[in-house]
Amino acid sequence: MKFTVSEIAQMLDGIIVGDEKVTIDSAAKIEEGRPGCISFLANSKYESYIYTTQSSAVIVNRDFTPKKDIAATLIYVDNAYSAFTILLEEYQKRIANIKQGVEQPSFIGDNSTVGVNGYRGAFSYIGKNCKIGDRVKIYPGAYLGDNVILGNDCCIHPGVRIYDNTVIGNNCNVFANTVIGSDGFGFAPQPDGSYKTIPQLGNVVLEDDVSIGANTTIDCATMGSTIIRKGAKVDNLVQIAHNVEVGSNTVIAAQSGVSGSTQIGERCVIAGQVGIVGHIFIANNTKIGAQSGLGKSIKKEGLSLSGSPARDLNEHLRTMAATRRLPEMEQRLKELELKRETSVIQERD
Amino acid sequence: MKFTVSEIAQMLDGIIVGDEKVTIDSAAKIEEGRPGCISFLANSKYESYIYTTQSSAVIVNRDFTPKKDIAATLIYVDNAYSAFTILLEEYQKRIANIKQGVEQPSFIGDNSTVGVNGYRGAFSYIGKNCKIGDRVKIYPGAYLGDNVILGNDCCIHPGVRIYDNTVIGNNCNVFANTVIGSDGFGFAPQPDGSYKTIPQLGNVVLEDDVSIGANTTIDCATMGSTIIRKGAKVDNLVQIAHNVEVGSNTVIAAQSGVSGSTQIGERCVIAGQVGIVGHIFIANNTKIGAQSGLGKSIKKEGLSLSGSPARDLNEHLRTMAATRRLPEMEQRLKELELKRETSVIQERD
Amino acid sequence: MKFTVSEIAQMLDGIIVGDEKVTIDSAAKIEEGRPGCISFLANSKYESYIYTTQSSAVIVNRDFTPKKDIAATLIYVDNAYSAFTILLEEYQKRIANIKQGVEQPSFIGDNSTVGVNGYRGAFSYIGKNCKIGDRVKIYPGAYLGDNVILGNDCCIHPGVRIYDNTVIGNNCNVFANTVIGSDGFGFAPQPDGSYKTIPQLGNVVLEDDVSIGANTTIDCATMGSTIIRKGAKVDNLVQIAHNVEVGSNTVIAAQSGVSGSTQIGERCVIAGQVGIVGHIFIANNTKIGAQSGLGKSIKKEGLSLSGSPARDLNEHLRTMAATRRLPEMEQRLKELELKRETSVIQERD
Repeated sequence: MKFTVSEIAQMLDGIIVGDEKVTIDSAAKIEEGRPGCISFLANSKYESYIYTTQSSAVIVNRDFTPKKDIAATLIYVDNAYSAFTILLEEYQKRIANIKQGVEQPSFIGDNSTVGVNGYRGAFSYIGKNCKIGDRVKIYPGAYLGDNVILGNDCCIHPGVRIYDNTVIGNNCNVFANTVIGSDGFGFAPQPDGSYKTIPQLGNVVLEDDVSIGANTTIDCATMGSTIIRKGAKVDNLVQIAHNVEVGSNTVIAAQSGVSGSTQIGERCVIAGQVGIVGHIFIANNTKIGAQSGLGKSIKKEGLSLSGSPARDLNEHLRTMAATRRLPEMEQRLKELELKRETSVIQERD
Repeated sequence: MKFTVSEIAQMLDGIIVGDEKVTIDSAAKIEEGRPGCISFLANSKYESYIYTTQSSAVIVNRDFTPKKDIAATLIYVDNAYSAFTILLEEYQKRIANIKQGVEQPSFIGDNSTVGVNGYRGAFSYIGKNCKIGDRVKIYPGAYLGDNVILGNDCCIHPGVRIYDNTVIGNNCNVFANTVIGSDGFGFAPQPDGSYKTIPQLGNVVLEDDVSIGANTTIDCATMGSTIIRKGAKVDNLVQIAHNVEVGSNTVIAAQSGVSGSTQIGERCVIAGQVGIVGHIFIANNTKIGAQSGLGKSIKKEGLSLSGSPARDLNEHLRTMAATRRLPEMEQRLKELELKRETSVIQERD
Repeated sequence: MKFTVSEIAQMLDGIIVGDEKVTIDSAAKIEEGRPGCISFLANSKYESYIYTTQSSAVIVNRDFTPKKDIAATLIYVDNAYSAFTILLEEYQKRIANIKQGVEQPSFIGDNSTVGVNGYRGAFSYIGKNCKIGDRVKIYPGAYLGDNVILGNDCCIHPGVRIYDNTVIGNNCNVFANTVIGSDGFGFAPQPDGSYKTIPQLGNVVLEDDVSIGANTTIDCATMGSTIIRKGAKVDNLVQIAHNVEVGSNTVIAAQSGVSGSTQIGERCVIAGQVGIVGHIFIANNTKIGAQSGLGKSIKKEGLSLSGSPARDLNEHLRTMAATRRLPEMEQRLKELELKRETSVIQERD
C-alpha cells in the first residue's frame, strides 16, 4: 500500500517542507531508513541521523530547526512521536481492510451464519451451527468446529484450530496455529496401571478484546468453561489448562504455562517461561518474574514474585545474591571451625 | 445433542422423581448449573446447592432424602458419582460418532486404503501407500504423509501433521496441530564453523491407546524409531526428540522436553516444564516434579525427584528450605567471625 | 525407494562380497537391523553384531577380516562410516526429489511467480506478489501470505504459516506448523488499566541455509526486521520475539525463548529450555546451558554460561555443589554457635 507525503500530511494535520509527491510504502527507524520509508524524529538525541537518513520522509516536531541540509521531505506536526503512532495504526487498519470476500475452496457447514464485510480464506473450515459476526477475518486454513460463536471484528489467523462450542467475543485476535478448546489433560489411573480418559465436555470462552499469540494452546474445561477475560493478552507457545480463568487485562508472556483450575486475577503481569500449578488463586495486579514457578495461592494484591518456588522479589534477589557467595561462605565456615579446633587444642595444652 | 431425563434414567437404571420430559443438552457442576444441564450430588458437603441449582436434573444416591423443595428433576441411582461418569462417557461417545463420511475437497494419494465407518474432513490430506484402519477420524486440515499406518479407532484432530512412515496403533488420539515425525535436530559441525545436516531417516511409532496433546512435537529417529509405548499420555507443547522411547502408561505434562535417545520407563509421571537430557535411562515408576532438569540416568525404580539438577525430592525440599534461610545464615556466620575476632583480641590483651 | 547392493557399491566405489542382487530399502544400526536394511561396521567394538545382524548388507572397512560366517552381503570401502553417511545423504536427496508438480486444489494469488522443478501440495496457499525460487517444495496445507520472497531449494513443510513480507534465502528448511512473522507481543498500557496494541509493521528475514524446527514461532519486527542469519539452526517449539537477531551458524535447541530486540552473535550454542531477556547483546561463540536464564549482555566471546540467572559455568557448578551441602553447613554453623555459647559460659564461670 502506498501513500503520498501530501496524503500523510493531511492525515496528521502537518505542514510539508520538501517534495510533497514522494510516495511512501513503509516505515522505519530514522537510523535504518530506506527510500520509500517514513521515519520520525522526536528525541534530539537522534538528530544527527536526520541529516543522513535514507528515508524519503521524516515527521518532526513544529519547533525543529535543521542545522544542515536534509534530503528527506519533512512533515511538521505538534507531536512527532504520537503522529507517527497514529500513522502506523492507520496504515495497519488499511492493510487489514484489504482482505474481504470469500476465497475458494472454503467450507461452511449447515446452519452456520456469517456477518457482513468479512473475509474467509481458501481452505478455511467452518463447522455446523456457527455464528460469525461482522467484519470477521478467517484466514486460509483456519478451522472452526461446530457451534462456535465469534463476535464482530475478530481476526482468526491461518491454521488456528477452534474446537466445538468455543465462544469468542468482539475484537479478538488469535494468531497462527493456536489451538483453542482441545481436551484438557485428564486421565484416571486404573488398578492395572493404565489410564482411563476423563471426558472433557466443557468449552473455552474468550471475552472481548482478547489477543492470543501463535502456537498457543488453551484447553476446554472438563465441565463449564476455561475463561480468558476482557482485554487479556497471551503470547506465543503458552499453555492454558482446563478450567483456568485468566483475569481482565492480564498479560502472559511466551512459553508460560498455567495448570488446571487456577484462577488468575486482573491486571497481572506474568513474564516468559513461568509455570503455575493447578487449583490456586492469584490476586489482582500480581507480577511474576521470568522462569518463576508459582506453587501456592497469592491472596494479597500487587505483589512482585520471582524464583522457583516463587516468592517476594526482594527476598528472592537477596537469596540469589547470598547463593552466589555460598562457596566463599563455606570457606569461611571451615576456617572458623579450624580456628575453633586450634583454640580448643591450645586451651587443652 | 439432546436427551430426555427418561432416556438418561433408563441408561443409568435410575428412578425419576419430577418431570421426566425435561431435555438435557449439557452437564455442569451442581453449583454452576444452568437450565438444560444435568449435575450430580454425591458428597453431602454440597447438599445445599441442590436446593438452589439452576440445573434441570440432578443425579443423586438412592439414600438421599431432600430437606427442602427441589426445582430440578432427580434421578436416583446406586452411585451418583459413577453414574454421572458413565453418562459423560456415553455422551462423549455419541458426540464423537456423529462425524462420519468424507467431506470435499479432501485428498488421498495412490494406493492408500481407508477402513470402514470413518470420517475424513475437508482439506485433509492422505499421502501414498497409507493404510488407515476402521472407524478412524481424520479432521479437517490434517496431513498424513506417505506410507503412514494408522490402526482402528484413532482420532487425528485438525491440523495434525504426520510425516512419512509413521506407524500408529489402535485407539490413539492426536490433538490439533501436533507434529509427528519431523526431522530430529542433528547437525555435524564443519571446519569452517557451519553445520551440515545429518539425514534423519527413521520414523515414529505410537503403540495402542496413546494420547498426544495439542501443538506437541515428536521427532523421527535418525535411524530406527522414536517410540511412544502403549497407553502413554503426552500433554500439549511437549518436545520428544529423535530416538527417544517413552514407556508404557507414562504420563508427560505440558511444555516438558525430552532430548535425543533417552529411554523413559513405564508408569513414570513427568510434571510440566521438565527438561531431560539426552542419552539417559529413567527407571519405571519415576516421578519428576515440575520445572525439574534431569541430567543423569535413574536406575532405581519408584524414586521421586525434583529440582534442576533433579535429585531426591526430600533432599531437594530440605535444600530449598535451607536456601531460603541463607541470608540469615550469612548474618550468623558474620557474627561468629566478629565474636571470634573479639575474643582473640581480648585474649591478646 | 529401493536400491540393489550392486547399485550401492557402485555409488560408494566399494567391493561386494556376497549376494549383489539383494535389495535395500532402509538403513539401521547394525544391532537393530532387519531384512532389507543396510548397516555399517566402523568400530571393532561392535564387531560381534556383524555375525548376528538381520541387516541384508553391511558396509565395512577394507581391512576388515571376518572371524566367523556372516549372513549379510558385505561392501568393502575405504572408510565405512563416511561411506554410510554419503549413502544416507544420497538416499535422502532422492527421496526429497520424488515430490514434484502441483497437487489440486491449491491456491496461488495474483502476480505471484514460482520457479522450476518445484512442488506445491494440495491445500497449500500462496498469496499475492510472492516470488518463489526454483526447486522449492511447499507441502500440503502450508500458507504464504502476500509479498513473500523465497529463494531456491527451500522446503516449506506441511502447515507452516509465513506471514506477509517475509524474506527467505536459498536452501532453507522450515518444519511443520512453524509460524514465521506473526505479530510481536507489544501492547501499550492505558490509564484505565487496559492495553492498546502497538502496530507490528516489520517483517522476518531468514538468510541462506537456515533450518527452523516444528511448531516454532518467529515474530515480525515492530519496524525493520527480525533476522536469522546464514546457517543458523533453530529447533522445535522455540520462541523468537520481535526485532531479535540470531547470528550466523548459531544453534538454538528446543523450547528456548529469546525476548525482543536481543542480538545473538555467531556460532553460539543455546541448549534447550533457555530463556533470554530482551534488549541484550550476546557475543560470538557463547555457550548457554540447558534451562539457563540469561539476564544481561555477554560482551566477551567464547564464554560458557549456566544457571538462572546465568553466569560462568564453573562458578555455577561450584555454587550448585555448595548448595547441595547447605543443610549440612547449616548444621555445622549451629554447632559452632553452640560451642561458642558454651565456651563463653565456661569463661564466665
